[in-house]
Amino acid sequence: MTPEETRSLLEQVRTGQLGVDQALTRLRPAPVSDLGYATVDLQRRDRCGFPEVVYAEGKTCEWLEGVVRQLAAAGQDCLATRLSAEQAEHMARHFHQGQQDRLARTFWLPHKPPAPPRGRVFVLTAGTSDLPVAQEAVVTATALGCEVTRVADVGVAGLHRLLRHREQFAEADAIVVAAGMDGALPSVVGGLVDCPVIAVPTSVGYGAAFQGVAPLLTMLNACSANVVVVNIDSGFKAGYVAALIARRANRPD
Amino acid sequence: MTPEETRSLLEQVRTGQLGVDQALTRLRPAPVSDLGYATVDLQRRDRCGFPEVVYAEGKTCEWLEGVVRQLAAAGQDCLATRLSAEQAEHMARHFHQGQQDRLARTFWLPHKPPAPPRGRVFVLTAGTSDLPVAQEAVVTATALGCEVTRVADVGVAGLHRLLRHREQFAEADAIVVAAGMDGALPSVVGGLVDCPVIAVPTSVGYGAAFQGVAPLLTMLNACSANVVVVNIDSGFKAGYVAALIARRANRPD
Amino acid sequence: MTPEETRSLLEQVRTGQLGVDQALTRLRPAPVSDLGYATVDLQRRDRCGFPEVVYAEGKTCEWLEGVVRQLAAAGQDCLATRLSAEQAEHMARHFHQGQQDRLARTFWLPHKPPAPPRGRVFVLTAGTSDLPVAQEAVVTATALGCEVTRVADVGVAGLHRLLRHREQFAEADAIVVAAGMDGALPSVVGGLVDCPVIAVPTSVGYGAAFQGVAPLLTMLNACSANVVVVNIDSGFKAGYVAALIARRANRPD
Amino acid sequence: MTPEETRSLLEQVRTGQLGVDQALTRLRPAPVSDLGYATVDLQRRDRCGFPEVVYAEGKTCEWLEGVVRQLAAAGQDCLATRLSAEQAEHMARHFHQGQQDRLARTFWLPHKPPAPPRGRVFVLTAGTSDLPVAQEAVVTATALGCEVTRVADVGVAGLHRLLRHREQFAEADAIVVAAGMDGALPSVVGGLVDCPVIAVPTSVGYGAAFQGVAPLLTMLNACSANVVVVNIDSGFKAGYVAALIARRANRPD
Amino acid sequence: MTPEETRSLLEQVRTGQLGVDQALTRLRPAPVSDLGYATVDLQRRDRCGFPEVVYAEGKTCEWLEGVVRQLAAAGQDCLATRLSAEQAEHMARHFHQGQQDRLARTFWLPHKPPAPPRGRVFVLTAGTSDLPVAQEAVVTATALGCEVTRVADVGVAGLHRLLRHREQFAEADAIVVAAGMDGALPSVVGGLVDCPVIAVPTSVGYGAAFQGVAPLLTMLNACSANVVVVNIDSGFKAGYVAALIARRANRPD
Amino acid sequence: MTPEETRSLLEQVRTGQLGVDQALTRLRPAPVSDLGYATVDLQRRDRCGFPEVVYAEGKTCEWLEGVVRQLAAAGQDCLATRLSAEQAEHMARHFHQGQQDRLARTFWLPHKPPAPPRGRVFVLTAGTSDLPVAQEAVVTATALGCEVTRVADVGVAGLHRLLRHREQFAEADAIVVAAGMDGALPSVVGGLVDCPVIAVPTSVGYGAAFQGVAPLLTMLNACSANVVVVNIDSGFKAGYVAALIARRANRPD
Amino acid sequence: MTPEETRSLLEQVRTGQLGVDQALTRLRPAPVSDLGYATVDLQRRDRCGFPEVVYAEGKTCEWLEGVVRQLAAAGQDCLATRLSAEQAEHMARHFHQGQQDRLARTFWLPHKPPAPPRGRVFVLTAGTSDLPVAQEAVVTATALGCEVTRVADVGVAGLHRLLRHREQFAEADAIVVAAGMDGALPSVVGGLVDCPVIAVPTSVGYGAAFQGVAPLLTMLNACSANVVVVNIDSGFKAGYVAALIARRANRPD
Amino acid sequence: MTPEETRSLLEQVRTGQLGVDQALTRLRPAPVSDLGYATVDLQRRDRCGFPEVVYAEGKTCEWLEGVVRQLAAAGQDCLATRLSAEQAEHMARHFHQGQQDRLARTFWLPHKPPAPPRGRVFVLTAGTSDLPVAQEAVVTATALGCEVTRVADVGVAGLHRLLRHREQFAEADAIVVAAGMDGALPSVVGGLVDCPVIAVPTSVGYGAAFQGVAPLLTMLNACSANVVVVNIDSGFKAGYVAALIARRANRPD
Repeated sequence: MTPEETRSLLEQVRTGQLGVDQALTRLRPAPVSDLGYATVDLQRRDRCGFPEVVYAEGKTCEWLEGVVRQLAAAGQDCLATRLSAEQAEHMARHFHQGQQDRLARTFWLPHKPPAPPRGRVFVLTAGTSDLPVAQEAVVTATALGCEVTRVADVGVAGLHRLLRHREQFAEADAIVVAAGMDGALPSVVGGLVDCPVIAVPTSVGYGAAFQGVAPLLTMLNACSANVVVVNIDSGFKAGYVAALIARRANRPD
Repeated sequence: MTPEETRSLLEQVRTGQLGVDQALTRLRPAPVSDLGYATVDLQRRDRCGFPEVVYAEGKTCEWLEGVVRQLAAAGQDCLATRLSAEQAEHMARHFHQGQQDRLARTFWLPHKPPAPPRGRVFVLTAGTSDLPVAQEAVVTATALGCEVTRVADVGVAGLHRLLRHREQFAEADAIVVAAGMDGALPSVVGGLVDCPVIAVPTSVGYGAAFQGVAPLLTMLNACSANVVVVNIDSGFKAGYVAALIARRANRPD
Repeated sequence: MTPEETRSLLEQVRTGQLGVDQALTRLRPAPVSDLGYATVDLQRRDRCGFPEVVYAEGKTCEWLEGVVRQLAAAGQDCLATRLSAEQAEHMARHFHQGQQDRLARTFWLPHKPPAPPRGRVFVLTAGTSDLPVAQEAVVTATALGCEVTRVADVGVAGLHRLLRHREQFAEADAIVVAAGMDGALPSVVGGLVDCPVIAVPTSVGYGAAFQGVAPLLTMLNACSANVVVVNIDSGFKAGYVAALIARRANRPD
Repeated sequence: MTPEETRSLLEQVRTGQLGVDQALTRLRPAPVSDLGYATVDLQRRDRCGFPEVVYAEGKTCEWLEGVVRQLAAAGQDCLATRLSAEQAEHMARHFHQGQQDRLARTFWLPHKPPAPPRGRVFVLTAGTSDLPVAQEAVVTATALGCEVTRVADVGVAGLHRLLRHREQFAEADAIVVAAGMDGALPSVVGGLVDCPVIAVPTSVGYGAAFQGVAPLLTMLNACSANVVVVNIDSGFKAGYVAALIARRANRPD
Repeated sequence: MTPEETRSLLEQVRTGQLGVDQALTRLRPAPVSDLGYATVDLQRRDRCGFPEVVYAEGKTCEWLEGVVRQLAAAGQDCLATRLSAEQAEHMARHFHQGQQDRLARTFWLPHKPPAPPRGRVFVLTAGTSDLPVAQEAVVTATALGCEVTRVADVGVAGLHRLLRHREQFAEADAIVVAAGMDGALPSVVGGLVDCPVIAVPTSVGYGAAFQGVAPLLTMLNACSANVVVVNIDSGFKAGYVAALIARRANRPD
Repeated sequence: MTPEETRSLLEQVRTGQLGVDQALTRLRPAPVSDLGYATVDLQRRDRCGFPEVVYAEGKTCEWLEGVVRQLAAAGQDCLATRLSAEQAEHMARHFHQGQQDRLARTFWLPHKPPAPPRGRVFVLTAGTSDLPVAQEAVVTATALGCEVTRVADVGVAGLHRLLRHREQFAEADAIVVAAGMDGALPSVVGGLVDCPVIAVPTSVGYGAAFQGVAPLLTMLNACSANVVVVNIDSGFKAGYVAALIARRANRPD
Repeated sequence: MTPEETRSLLEQVRTGQLGVDQALTRLRPAPVSDLGYATVDLQRRDRCGFPEVVYAEGKTCEWLEGVVRQLAAAGQDCLATRLSAEQAEHMARHFHQGQQDRLARTFWLPHKPPAPPRGRVFVLTAGTSDLPVAQEAVVTATALGCEVTRVADVGVAGLHRLLRHREQFAEADAIVVAAGMDGALPSVVGGLVDCPVIAVPTSVGYGAAFQGVAPLLTMLNACSANVVVVNIDSGFKAGYVAALIARRANRPD
Repeated sequence: MTPEETRSLLEQVRTGQLGVDQALTRLRPAPVSDLGYATVDLQRRDRCGFPEVVYAEGKTCEWLEGVVRQLAAAGQDCLATRLSAEQAEHMARHFHQGQQDRLARTFWLPHKPPAPPRGRVFVLTAGTSDLPVAQEAVVTATALGCEVTRVADVGVAGLHRLLRHREQFAEADAIVVAAGMDGALPSVVGGLVDCPVIAVPTSVGYGAAFQGVAPLLTMLNACSANVVVVNIDSGFKAGYVAALIARRANRPD
């Protein structure tokens, strides 16, 4: 609805041509935007606390662009994940305000400047090769409004690398742990802290790592009771839930 | 059999040189056409209600062309699926009448103009990325003579996107639902309607989606009793069976 | 340390025979209790906010009893899970104060009366057969001090069963969803709420449910971003993490 | 609502104490019956054409009995599947009208005498050992009101066993094919008929049959385009969908 | 051993410088040829009836060439399988006598002209896309000295395509059947003949065909008792064993 | 057809009441015997060289008995495999002539005394625990008329155990090798002989043997070209095919 | 060879009736003992440093007894593993000298008193439920002549339980680590020591532990370079190899 | 610490400005080097006997270079594995002293000249295509200071190829065996020697080799008790542990 249409509508209310209820209906944001190839969910933010996040894989550049435009037009923050190099370039050309993190393969177009962060999230990796996944978690949790600290390459083969951060962890509301291969790090971290640990298996490794199946199973069987798991390589979902937990724990009074 | 041969044969019948039964045998279409690399089934239409559909993968362009020519020569509609870009171009050059849908990767060469559609099929997708598979179902069910409605991106994370179409579904004779990742949509759709739901898992997703295994298992275990399943990414088979059901439910008296 | 020993020690401090630091060391609870067959972790409560929980499977009745006695002796709450019928009877004979839930297969021996509950957890099941797993979550989250509401049999084949509870869910700090077969419920619940959803796949179902693998994969691929997953049938871990989230969100000022 | 309550309510309408709309609301059947351990879906019949079917596995005898009582009380046909021997005996004691098929492991308590059958379903098995699964399909499709013909042990190792029924198959609206081991029968049947084939893999076989995985994969990859698949051993779902197809194809004018 | 060396050796025998036994040892072909990167088995022909066959995958062009040269130098027939395009070109440049079949991806360098064929092998395919695998079987069985007949595209969706060859099959000593997708053809063929059927699953298909796993399982569970199985896509091994059977059944008196 | 009926029929032919063709039809053995729960294939012997073999698993004692009676009545040898203890006792009571091998779990009711054996089959096992499977092969190959030699426990961890039989193997027409765990024996045997090796993986072993999957994969990948594979624990099929090969290689002139 | 036979043989040597070489051959221990159902390897000790170990599963009590008798008769130590309760009782009745460990399910019949231990092996478990597997390692390494220390229940959820043994580990020549569920312990132990770590996954756990598959994969992907793996639950093999390493590192000069 | 800093520090000790203990702390090598993207473990050599080995996959060229520089700067030997062609070229440009083995895909930058080798390791391959994996083991064990002998292409299809090296094996302290496909070689080697065998499955093969899963399972189930296993294609880990064993067995007195 353009400003002119809104003005006209309000004018009609003022003059009694239109009832209050009818006006309300027209003003209420449409629940969806139907693009033919996509049905953008414009109520997600109200129901779930954050707008629909766009999954870029399998979409043409035009589809991706179209969905992002709808969200932006509806005045919503727009986060897109897993962009290919081609999509990234396309989006860079069409959305100059969009913030891209090429390590994380994300696109982020906030609707307004961020509020001060709320809640504290740590993102750990077992190895350097897990960084792309971890960075997706960092970007996501930051977009949801949390303060995020990244700690890289603290796998269990050298425990002291992890333990030197131990006291810091007491500040965490939630900890994301990204690990491939043996996926053992979340079990160890879980035993050191009293907040939830979101374990994200990565496809780092070879042979019997089976593209992340090995660390996925490890994490599902973590001997520490505070470990939950998300999909292989889903830094996005790990960062998302960590942020939900951290935000809830730091609600403004 | 060339026209001359046919004429000669009929002449022999007229003059009594050839009995009616013998003539019948000779006139009856050959059950197969043997090309060396392919044994084209020319009786499929009579037995199953639709001619043999050509699976393009793993065929050279020449083999694909050869099989299509045989079907066309036998006066049969010809549908081919899963064409590569190279095959698509080859076929475009050699069959100007052929209708290609590049999203669905199909080739369609009907033998005569379509009859008015019979029976109603809906094709739903959970996400935008499922569209190529869904479109294969759309093309197939249309080729079999049904009226098809496509509804994209109505996954369960935003139920209202689906529920706004709910009343429409009452017109459906069969509903195809394409979904990747969690594959949850067919279970929900199944609980809303009284016609069969043909669930087609797609390879959309990553990690523990395992190229479609996750939604395949979901759908096989659908808690709604009216859900049946076809192979991963097999929009073709889903559209085919949906059309069989819809046609049967709307047989001319 | 017996009371006599403590008295004697304090006496030594008073008389200067023992320095304050030395006394402190002796009084500090032992970090472990080594039973030969078990090394009970007596610091778990301090590090992680809840004492070590005893996994009963694969333990003899004597081992189980021994570990529980150590925890109780150390003044800690004691929760044990997955008791066999034989273990349950053994424990009932030896710990009259112990509270057993035979549906959940749990044993609970709190050290002192519970504090008023803090934080709100919902535990949902898709079907009636998921109740044993859900009940384990209920018992665990209650033991951790939360208020817990159980809602049974609200699977997606009849959405209205779920949606009639929808407004209630706004009160939840975390929602546990137990489902077998298609495991589709967490995806749908996730799309309705703004708190984390802890999905727990159950081994309910047959055939391609593969003892919980099907719902596990579904949940890992849930299209709702707020869904995390725990091990198959691990109502325990789901209840545990849900309680951690809920407690953190309701910390006393 | 007891007859007395209904009478009283209507009396109130007559006297104007109760408006028509209010009365309507009260008379409308409750959408669910909430038993604590189960939320019985009393609208399933209206939405999906057949009442909720009860899955007996994992339910106590009391739970099973309770759900069945609710459905019966609501004036609905009640079908339950996969009863254990213990459940079967319990139900036999409590529901003398209930019809049990011990081969199929089903319980069937119709609300009123069956209407004349509508639509024709065939149920085939590859081997004798597939009979329990096939019989579940027979019972289900019969309960849904179809005429059902069972043909046992016509696997592909002796094609003539199948082909002698070939002409009969022309009468079928849908064909259920139950097969274990190689699961090859649906592919062959599919190539002979023009109606949908519902393939149901069985756990018959050993070794690399993997409790039905082998025939499941075979069927998902069936080279005949008219074959759809249901879960391993799910004679129930196969019979259900076959009946939906057959009923739709024979709707009363 | 060069001709000169042999002449010199025989001279030594003649003059009594070398005993007969010693000479025998030197003349006896070396059991292996050790190339550092390969230990060529020069006794394989004597033990197993056919020389070592060279598996080209994972070998550099130089390694492949080196092994072939050793076999040729030892006066043995040389068959190599699974050549890449690059290897094929390399071998074409270096072995002008070598016969290459690019569909089968084989290289064949016989040591002497073939003897008249002995024994009869049929090689069938379910579909056209199975031809590369089938052709590898054809080449191999021909190299082993059998008469081979190829019959393409006679899958079970159109049984008459297969049955028209039925009488011919009576001449077969062994039948190779290559099939992907549902892999159902060997079961049907097995039920028609009294000779062994060597089933070779192909990676033809998509989705739940799992690169040949589906037909592999089908074939291992074939309901016909005369079906044995080889590795996915191993036309080589199927042709090899079929030829062993056929040769043995037609041993010269 | 009873002798009286046959006599009567012939009488009718003699007197001209019945034409020769009609008589022929009536005299030709029925292609099947339809028992309702089984369609016994009475032409299998003619097509495949041996009567239908009865798979006992999943059959009631009555069904098993019924099928066996039909085969016997049709004058055919009857072999049944995988009998449970209960079935074995039932059959022992009803068929006193039946020969049971309790190690192999087989039932064998020959129609007439065996002919002199034809062709030579060896059956090897890697370990003692593989004997039940091997014995099923022994019984089967013997039933098909071969001379069979069993060699137990010659696994590759002690090669000399195998090599001491090496010269004997030259007499073999086919060798069955049963092995569990690593399944390495067929590869080694294959490299020593020039006849086909039928490898049968057994479910012997634990852990990563996965009930026979490990040896199954080993055998499918056997580096010896003359190794083919049958289903896990299918001593029956291994013995069957070995006998087919051996009989064919020793056809009477 | 009985003493009388030996005496007679030596007498023949003395008198010149028998040459020394001939006598040597007769006196040399037989390489195998052929029992029909078993070919006992009597040279294993000479080749591999320890006699054949008997795997009890799948053997009848009589077979087990027979093999053990052969080994004992040949003057060799006899270790048997994985005895069932029934086998254990049978062996206890027949071999009063045999030492049975019912936790480890082992039978041990040494030929002579043990030599002083050589080399140091540690056996660790992550949890109490892993003890049966660990104990099998303890018994085996002890039988091979090592000094063995068992440390139970030191899983990574409470690192201090493990770290308090850290200095002790410096004495180890090899460390066996048994763990189920997440299998994370070997990775952590590996990072603390400079000797090989033999990781043995156990089937302890449930759900996604998949009877030991999860810890197996974890251990194969261990991020510590000094970790090797044995079969699930194979405490035997872990103890065996650990002892080989420890003995070799402490060879008498 | 630069030389100037060290000189200044020592000057402070001399003048008493700094206590000895304080100085010691500053001089002690840092436990880690934190690069942001990597936390290099500088204590690994002290704890485990060899510095951290760098896993190149998933690292940018800059990250790889950075980690190597840190290790070199810390005076440690640096081994990196699994370099891509691009990484190999980058490293060649920046580290002229680095030794690269392109078959093994390794980079080796020793800190000082090697000591005389200690301990003897054999590295065997079943086929020529296994050489890249084997060579990684050769490079690693050599880097750890052992004498290494490579024996290629001695798979079990031609046992004499292996047995001709048999006596040499007596010198081995540990034997690495790399094999793909059936993975049978370690079982056979294990039965011939008295030292540990480190089996490394390779991804050589196709079809049911499943990228190394088949030989992995074979090796985990090896019937020889002295066989342990590492990850698929992990020549590195196999060489590493073999060297640990060999070094320990040849410790300087």
